[in-house]
Amino acid sequence: MTAMTTLGETGELDLVAAIVARLPSSAQVLLGPGDDAAVVATPDGRVVATIDVLVEGVHFRRDWSEAVDVGHKAAAQNLADVAAMGARPLALLVGLAAPATLPTQWALGLADGLAAEAAKTGAAVVGGDVVAGERVTVSVTALGSLEGREPVTRAGARPGDVVAVCGRLGWSAGGLAVLSRGFRSPRALVAAHRRPEPPYEAGPAAALAGATAMVDVSDGLLGDLAQVSVASGVRMRVEVAAFEVPAALRDAAAALGKDPLEWVLTGGEDHALAATFPSAGQVPAGWTVIGEVLALAGPSSAPQDPAGPRVTVSGLPAGTYEGPGGWRHFSA
Amino acid sequence: MTAMTTLGETGELDLVAAIVARLPSSAQVLLGPGDDAAVVATPDGRVVATIDVLVEGVHFRRDWSEAVDVGHKAAAQNLADVAAMGARPLALLVGLAAPATLPTQWALGLADGLAAEAAKTGAAVVGGDVVAGERVTVSVTALGSLEGREPVTRAGARPGDVVAVCGRLGWSAGGLAVLSRGFRSPRALVAAHRRPEPPYEAGPAAALAGATAMVDVSDGLLGDLAQVSVASGVRMRVEVAAFEVPAALRDAAAALGKDPLEWVLTGGEDHALAATFPSAGQVPAGWTVIGEVLALAGPSSAPQDPAGPRVTVSGLPAGTYEGPGGWRHFSA
Repeated sequence: MTAMTTLGETGELDLVAAIVARLPSSAQVLLGPGDDAAVVATPDGRVVATIDVLVEGVHFRRDWSEAVDVGHKAAAQNLADVAAMGARPLALLVGLAAPATLPTQWALGLADGLAAEAAKTGAAVVGGDVVAGERVTVSVTALGSLEGREPVTRAGARPGDVVAVCGRLGWSAGGLAVLSRGFRSPRALVAAHRRPEPPYEAGPAAALAGATAMVDVSDGLLGDLAQVSVASGVRMRVEVAAFEVPAALRDAAAALGKDPLEWVLTGGEDHALAATFPSAGQVPAGWTVIGEVLALAGPSSAPQDPAGPRVTVSGLPAGTYEGPGGWRHFSA
Repeated sequence: MTAMTTLGETGELDLVAAIVARLPSSAQVLLGPGDDAAVVATPDGRVVATIDVLVEGVHFRRDWSEAVDVGHKAAAQNLADVAAMGARPLALLVGLAAPATLPTQWALGLADGLAAEAAKTGAAVVGGDVVAGERVTVSVTALGSLEGREPVTRAGARPGDVVAVCGRLGWSAGGLAVLSRGFRSPRALVAAHRRPEPPYEAGPAAALAGATAMVDVSDGLLGDLAQVSVASGVRMRVEVAAFEVPAALRDAAAALGKDPLEWVLTGGEDHALAATFPSAGQVPAGWTVIGEVLALAGPSSAPQDPAGPRVTVSGLPAGTYEGPGGWRHFSA
């Protein structure tokens, strides 16, 4: 096979065989790829399961990201969903729709990225499907184990809890802004856009520490906190002064005439974790407290609007971000 | 919402909320849709998992199938994979990529079909993802429970076993041939193409009866039996006289100038089950014995070619189908 060999030339069966040969297994994989279905051990009698779809031109560009990067990113966003339940990833299943003209090396690179990112968490790729389709579309299902713990949902935040985050915020948005202007540096930001680095271990650690609600930041911090607030029936206030904006973000934003705080507060795809804890003393190392949970009808004697903004930002020089602020699929 | 409302007008959040509101739950769903991930009970500490992708124009046409049919079909092919392991379906996760111009009713119809087909097996839709994409692409992951049994893989067929099938063969191919000529009848064949009816219960029943290998017929009987033969290191001989070709298939084939046996032997997508059993006496009711498993180097004293056809067909008037015979993605 040369670098120019296409999926059409390789054929489905040989492609699948080549991919399967590259996939490492793991102890919890009782039956790996190649049969009608895989079998995965679920030690506590429950399985955490989530699915995400990435479409070329919408979620990635082949001229901006290598195949291995797309594999890392597709895996990361699903593995982060598992971590956000307080669970540990067990396995991935991957669906790939691609044109017959796609270089076979691209599909193999994708598989390598998926397997390598999964391996960071101890998970393995256990199954897949490859079909013909005009546009490269990658669908990833992640399975995980709660290890006997209760899942940390979005619905458990209570007034008086503190809000904390762990992991990068705004890096992927900064990298996307850089790439959109035709630049390839600062390299750290571009790399962060290509391959997010979710703090997987922080998910189970937060659950053990007593987190009351948790979410992975996929659509932007304010938007995802708003979802937690709606699910929990609360409001949140976030304090800008709590964020340390890294120099890499500050410098890139200055060069592009952007506000780095907007990347931090509304940028998606870094897959940081955001969680609420009953007290600041329970927040594990590596997390930063950024705000507090308020009652829907707050202590103020003034009438409050239950449909009003769920998340408000204090200390923002240029005003206050209100509403979700994250990006929405399909919206204009 | 009117029949003309599009995904772009409905928006992602309202679409997801409308879909989730239509999805029935089930006893094994510990946490349903709406969070970062779902949680499903896996009573025996193992989960069976499989993924399939359907692309508009490749696997379905919106002018030939209603949305609800596509939902039934997408669910059926994954649920059949679970049944082919001898397992019982627990849950589905669904990824949908669709253009903003797609009628919202189409997405809701798809969800209804998925949920209804899952409900036939006791499974529920527990999670999903909706993203923007030019071409409608549906990705379905099915999870299942082995209920304490060992999985029935493709690798267990032994010389001396009998080969048996359960469920329709050739109906979907017949229906596709009818639609391809611009006809809409015989309705039974067209309906079979739109909504396969896999014999889900026959999977666990075959496992209990001692099936040594099992597969669901998705790419054509001969092709799928060839895969079992390769995985098991055996050959198979199938006897044409064993098949009862239904009148609906015979009549439609005569009208179109086709051989109905070709539909039966090489047509995919009916998701019948094919399995091997140690003896004809162990084959459960509802299955038809169609052939036998042979050693790779057979009893004949003539030298045999291990790379030769894995599955041969006896009694075919017009000659012998050799090789897989199923359709291949990407091939010319």
